Amino acid sequence: MKLLVIGGCGFIGSHVVDLLLQEEVRVRVFDRRPEAFRAPLPAVDYVMGDYTDPTQLFEAVRDVDAVLHLASTTVPATANLNPVADIEGNLVATVRLLDVMRATGKRRLVFLSSGGTVYGVPEADPVPEDHPLRPISSYGIVKVAIENYIRMEQALHGIEPVILRASNPYGPRQSHAGIQGIIGTHLWRAARGEPVEVWGDGQVTRDFIHVRDLAELCVRALRSHTSGCFNAGSGTGTSVAEIVAGIDRTVRASGGPPVRPLCRPGRAFDVPRVVLDISRAREAFGWAPRIGLDEGLAESWRWVRTTEALQAGNEERPTTGPAAPARAGAMA
Amino acid sequence: MKLLVIGGCGFIGSHVVDLLLQEEVRVRVFDRRPEAFRAPLPAVDYVMGDYTDPTQLFEAVRDVDAVLHLASTTVPATANLNPVADIEGNLVATVRLLDVMRATGKRRLVFLSSGGTVYGVPEADPVPEDHPLRPISSYGIVKVAIENYIRMEQALHGIEPVILRASNPYGPRQSHAGIQGIIGTHLWRAARGEPVEVWGDGQVTRDFIHVRDLAELCVRALRSHTSGCFNAGSGTGTSVAEIVAGIDRTVRASGGPPVRPLCRPGRAFDVPRVVLDISRAREAFGWAPRIGLDEGLAESWRWVRTTEALQAGNEERPTTGPAAPARAGAMA
Repeated sequence: MKLLVIGGCGFIGSHVVDLLLQEEVRVRVFDRRPEAFRAPLPAVDYVMGDYTDPTQLFEAVRDVDAVLHLASTTVPATANLNPVADIEGNLVATVRLLDVMRATGKRRLVFLSSGGTVYGVPEADPVPEDHPLRPISSYGIVKVAIENYIRMEQALHGIEPVILRASNPYGPRQSHAGIQGIIGTHLWRAARGEPVEVWGDGQVTRDFIHVRDLAELCVRALRSHTSGCFNAGSGTGTSVAEIVAGIDRTVRASGGPPVRPLCRPGRAFDVPRVVLDISRAREAFGWAPRIGLDEGLAESWRWVRTTEALQAGNEERPTTGPAAPARAGAMA
Repeated sequence: MKLLVIGGCGFIGSHVVDLLLQEEVRVRVFDRRPEAFRAPLPAVDYVMGDYTDPTQLFEAVRDVDAVLHLASTTVPATANLNPVADIEGNLVATVRLLDVMRATGKRRLVFLSSGGTVYGVPEADPVPEDHPLRPISSYGIVKVAIENYIRMEQALHGIEPVILRASNPYGPRQSHAGIQGIIGTHLWRAARGEPVEVWGDGQVTRDFIHVRDLAELCVRALRSHTSGCFNAGSGTGTSVAEIVAGIDRTVRASGGPPVRPLCRPGRAFDVPRVVLDISRAREAFGWAPRIGLDEGLAESWRWVRTTEALQAGNEERPTTGPAAPARAGAMA
């Protein structure tokens, strides 16, 4: 069996690839650039290219058995800045992917949608999949439109899709760019000895899922014979204040200094609470999230600390050598 | 007051323009081509151009007080053939319109959405506005995405939009291209003495609204201080078989021959029944549809017969002259 992972060099994609490589499958990754935090894996067939180009996509798709589409050219925090680019880069590109799958006779697709944005301001807690879709951001609007085109392709041409509406993933290899994922952002700031930003009273609540739990759901969904749409979260709500407290405990337990919150005014666009009802995915795939928040934070912190130390070492010493100790501010 | 009607040369747009000209407003029409069935109106400021071009749109928008956006580059029957063109021509173009309205400080927008496609296969009869949006065609998917961007613009930047989800309009000036509106298509075929196509058992049921009733709702919505989303139909269901019977009665009452139905196999993509709940629009705008189906069919038939006779005359006698009698097949 040969699988194509579009976006396989990203945060979530890299963990999906790790799980797939443990099975008897061949893996091709299609992405714009190599992974940010590790060298290419010898077992993977990497294709670096532009997935909005149907020709490159056709080449990548034609000899695989199934497609996992995890790519996004935007993140929730920035998609509103240029909705046209969001539409072109994600909606149009995915409609073309569906064309290519139809032309090459591929039926199995796992698509990563967004449990945090497609529902808008939820009227239910936890939010089930049949909750009205009232997205209030370009990111969510585009995800809804993609979901609709996938369902149309299913109805008209018989593809067998699984749509996974992911909540807030966190874990090793989450970028420190500071625009996606408060856990990753906070851990990187803590590692540099910087205060972490908290908007409003810290009671904004999200559903955080460890990236390996999410990756396992992607792989189980792919392996199943089920089609449909499934929330993909932990099913548990955690406030921003609890996240900061958890990070503080984790950092201090490793000998680091207390994490300083930097209080900012509340942001009007923050939905107060989004927690996903994950019973449908539990039932359909025999899956459950297994990594608790404390365990996940501790593992993520170890990864951030190690990676930060390596990067600091590389910055200070351009030649290859043993990792330098972390900066004083980070580890004092 | 100066108003911009995007798509003002179309079937619905031309009737909206007629109503606006009865009021104390100046009207600019932005469209790709002139009206198909009558000469330009002296009181209207016509701008022929491409509304997907933001520069042309900016010129057309900058000195008006409000915008009615009635344009679509696709129709439900053909949008699936090229979803990327549907996305580019309608979704991207409308997102750019919102940019232009924001840049020029315009707040009032009436947008014509689609009551027949945004709900997908309805679970309610009649269908209220808060019914889940599960479109199963590119046309409906794009309308939903546009609605979502309009609501986002309302939430973030305070525009004051009215979204009208129109059902199946019919009436004078409906095209005879045969792809939009079975009443227009059937009347034109009857006028040419051709049989009218009926798919399946004729029990497919739709909500037909006279185009002047819909135009009046557009104008009332524009004049109101209400924002929101409203179904725009007659609130009454009529089957395809009833339409054919009504047309047959109408044609025979005018001295024409019986209308021959041509029975075709049922089409898988036809939703069995879509009838809109219009109580929200009735209440918000003090509006009600006023033109009954028999009256509307009779008027439409008179218009088709006259127009067909004129066109036949023009075809047969290229020089200007009195209208030739209708072709034998049509009027025998």
